[in-house]
Amino acid sequence: MANEKKIPYKIYLEENEMPKAWYNVRADMKNKPAPMLNPGTHQPMTAEELGGVFCAELVQQELDNDTAFFEIPQEIRDFYKMYRPSPLVRAYCLEEKLQTPAKIYYKFEGNNTSGSHKLNSAIAQAYYAKNQGLKGVTTETGAGQWGTALSMACSYLGLDCKVYMVKVSYEQKPFRREVMRTYGASVVPSPSDTTQIGRKILAEHPGTTGSLGCAISEAVEVATSTPGYRYVLGSVLNQVLLHQSVIGLEVKAAMDKYGIKPDMIIGCAGGGSNLGGLIAPFMGEKLRGEADYDIVAVEPASCPSLTRGVYAYDFCDTGMVCPLAKMYTLGCDFIPAPNHAGGLRYHGMSPVLSQLYDDGLMRAVSVPQTSVFEAAEEFARVEGILPAPESSHAIRVALDEAKRCRETGEEKTILFGLTGTGYFDLVAYQKYHDGLMDDYIPTDEELALYRAKLPKID
Amino acid sequence: MANEKKIPYKIYLEENEMPKAWYNVRADMKNKPAPMLNPGTHQPMTAEELGGVFCAELVQQELDNDTAFFEIPQEIRDFYKMYRPSPLVRAYCLEEKLQTPAKIYYKFEGNNTSGSHKLNSAIAQAYYAKNQGLKGVTTETGAGQWGTALSMACSYLGLDCKVYMVKVSYEQKPFRREVMRTYGASVVPSPSDTTQIGRKILAEHPGTTGSLGCAISEAVEVATSTPGYRYVLGSVLNQVLLHQSVIGLEVKAAMDKYGIKPDMIIGCAGGGSNLGGLIAPFMGEKLRGEADYDIVAVEPASCPSLTRGVYAYDFCDTGMVCPLAKMYTLGCDFIPAPNHAGGLRYHGMSPVLSQLYDDGLMRAVSVPQTSVFEAAEEFARVEGILPAPESSHAIRVALDEAKRCRETGEEKTILFGLTGTGYFDLVAYQKYHDGLMDDYIPTDEELALYRAKLPKID
Repeated sequence: MANEKKIPYKIYLEENEMPKAWYNVRADMKNKPAPMLNPGTHQPMTAEELGGVFCAELVQQELDNDTAFFEIPQEIRDFYKMYRPSPLVRAYCLEEKLQTPAKIYYKFEGNNTSGSHKLNSAIAQAYYAKNQGLKGVTTETGAGQWGTALSMACSYLGLDCKVYMVKVSYEQKPFRREVMRTYGASVVPSPSDTTQIGRKILAEHPGTTGSLGCAISEAVEVATSTPGYRYVLGSVLNQVLLHQSVIGLEVKAAMDKYGIKPDMIIGCAGGGSNLGGLIAPFMGEKLRGEADYDIVAVEPASCPSLTRGVYAYDFCDTGMVCPLAKMYTLGCDFIPAPNHAGGLRYHGMSPVLSQLYDDGLMRAVSVPQTSVFEAAEEFARVEGILPAPESSHAIRVALDEAKRCRETGEEKTILFGLTGTGYFDLVAYQKYHDGLMDDYIPTDEELALYRAKLPKID
Repeated sequence: MANEKKIPYKIYLEENEMPKAWYNVRADMKNKPAPMLNPGTHQPMTAEELGGVFCAELVQQELDNDTAFFEIPQEIRDFYKMYRPSPLVRAYCLEEKLQTPAKIYYKFEGNNTSGSHKLNSAIAQAYYAKNQGLKGVTTETGAGQWGTALSMACSYLGLDCKVYMVKVSYEQKPFRREVMRTYGASVVPSPSDTTQIGRKILAEHPGTTGSLGCAISEAVEVATSTPGYRYVLGSVLNQVLLHQSVIGLEVKAAMDKYGIKPDMIIGCAGGGSNLGGLIAPFMGEKLRGEADYDIVAVEPASCPSLTRGVYAYDFCDTGMVCPLAKMYTLGCDFIPAPNHAGGLRYHGMSPVLSQLYDDGLMRAVSVPQTSVFEAAEEFARVEGILPAPESSHAIRVALDEAKRCRETGEEKTILFGLTGTGYFDLVAYQKYHDGLMDDYIPTDEELALYRAKLPKID
């Protein structure tokens, strides 16, 4: 390893260099993401309709396709200072190990107790709820990062927090549950008998272990039927991508400081919150014709919404109580195979990213899960961070590209998003070590079945 | 919260400000720590004798009471850059919550996958082993932080790593085990039938769930009987405190940069590795008469070696195969009550810290575990980090002092060591939440029984 490096192993911005406004990539998109539709009338959702579900300020952010920058309120900026800036890491150790001429950077969002980037939007959403004088918020969580993040934010602001946790995760991840409990949240396994939709799903599918779409339905029902409560969501929505732009803005500021320009930007994609945030300012430059970047979404082969889904209006939830969103989707009943351990299990994709993908402004690849865990372990051993399975999708593609550069001699600059840590995913790691993990990939026939059930919108 | 702060929430040193040499506090001690003795002859251990157990370079560091600074080899400094500098955090959020005029700082060592400061010495010890051409190292681990840290270091350098893990932890912490496995270490529950001493202990105490002292005996036996192997230890030893001085040196550099001077320095103390490292440069100033600090060791009431032990020669291990060390000890057979969940369960204390304590240069307090978890939760909710139970001992005392300052109006500057995260300690948190945790404190009669068995040294 060379002893003198111009660029440090980790770039931390100074506090005064941290973003003061979120960037709304929609402002620079020629083709705006399609509006959400009322599931009954199929007309665009109005601010008033959305206001029954979301806080007023967040509704404005959700609907605003024109304002490029939203000032980050001082209270949120102060909270960000508690756990941000996150480091932009130059992966010298990995480069050395791979003997690649590629320059690898990753933005590491896992240095907070939620274990991921989710806290960036959780605090924003909780802040606006508090500001509106609400008593509490409801949400769903799958693996638990989002639920943990929201619990932390609510605990900090003194808001009540009700989390509907996908039952299989609730049972298999008692520790995530316990962290949320430490932060004073109430956690309910979903589907539950606490909601109408939960009771209906339980009656129809008695043995079900739940799904994100189903937990969303329950959380929305409780929010809309309890005075003083609203619903908050950790991904997919425009507002979430807006808040998560803090990731990309920090990266951009750090890179500009050192004169670094990435050739390739890689992020894992489930609902799109991390990828959307990471790429935001770079995509903005691309949209404005100021620069070009190869932007890659990486999704699990077992839940391939971008690579094998269709771009159509679909429900955001299984219970079909939420608005319809136009997005790349596998169908709102789609649930990845039970052996899928890598997260990123949402049936759809952020409407913003869906539009950008449809416009050819980014590409997508899907990767099988054993290769994801292989990459995770390779990374952990040289970079000292045990990555979340979700993040490891991006690692897989970054490693492959860096190895390709070793063959071609290209000095490509690769940036990827390391969204979080895998400390609560060790059951999955164990499966991988014990050879109990396989790579089930849905067949075309299966996908066609779900696709046939998509709502028909003129 | 004030919007303008002169001191940032987190101070990260620049790479060129990171320590280039470890500081050996023994060089400034008038009363040097007593030498380790050969358990057979009761004569001071020679370098040659120690060389059978430890790497040659580490033996030099262990025995050297005079050299103030040891240069950190470039390879170790490069490894440090992978996960260091660790942040020195100004706990603005906590201060605000407590409404205290005290200024609270903590040095957070948990931002790496070992989850604690242990990696600082693990990489040093693995480096010297590798440099000496060894094939591998053996060690023991209790809660698992040290074992994980050593696995990471060995994996990085391509050394074999055998970890004897206290059986009760092995069974209750399968995830720590899995992390070590990710890093390629072999992990054996102790006592085991793989060693003579393990078989002897199993025969005498068939149902035993093990202890640190017993795991040390096994690891030493394997190291000394396997060609190409040496033993490494994560705490207690002089060399470990030397490596851990990187913590205190970073704190000192960061504080000097901003003109901060702590009035009180608080650290949890099990074997003493974190506390010894944190206080090193401050204690140096105190020893040289350049400054004064109130230095406080915090230990569990259920394992009170400093506050209720005696300063005497004792075995470092249960099997009595290790050298004798003069230290504050409860007796090498002492094991904290089974309900003890807070770590810091070693029967003795670093000889360096023991001597400093005996000389009145630092003080010690003990705290019951439920109050430790109460402090942990209070801290987690405002500072966004779920602390390790070990670290929470220091948090308890820091909170108490900050609250006292609220009453008195003192603008005291408090520094404490936040050694790590509690992500693998959620069984303990759950116990606490469920009201299943109690505060067993050993009686004087119990302690007297163990004390009576101390070896008689003239």
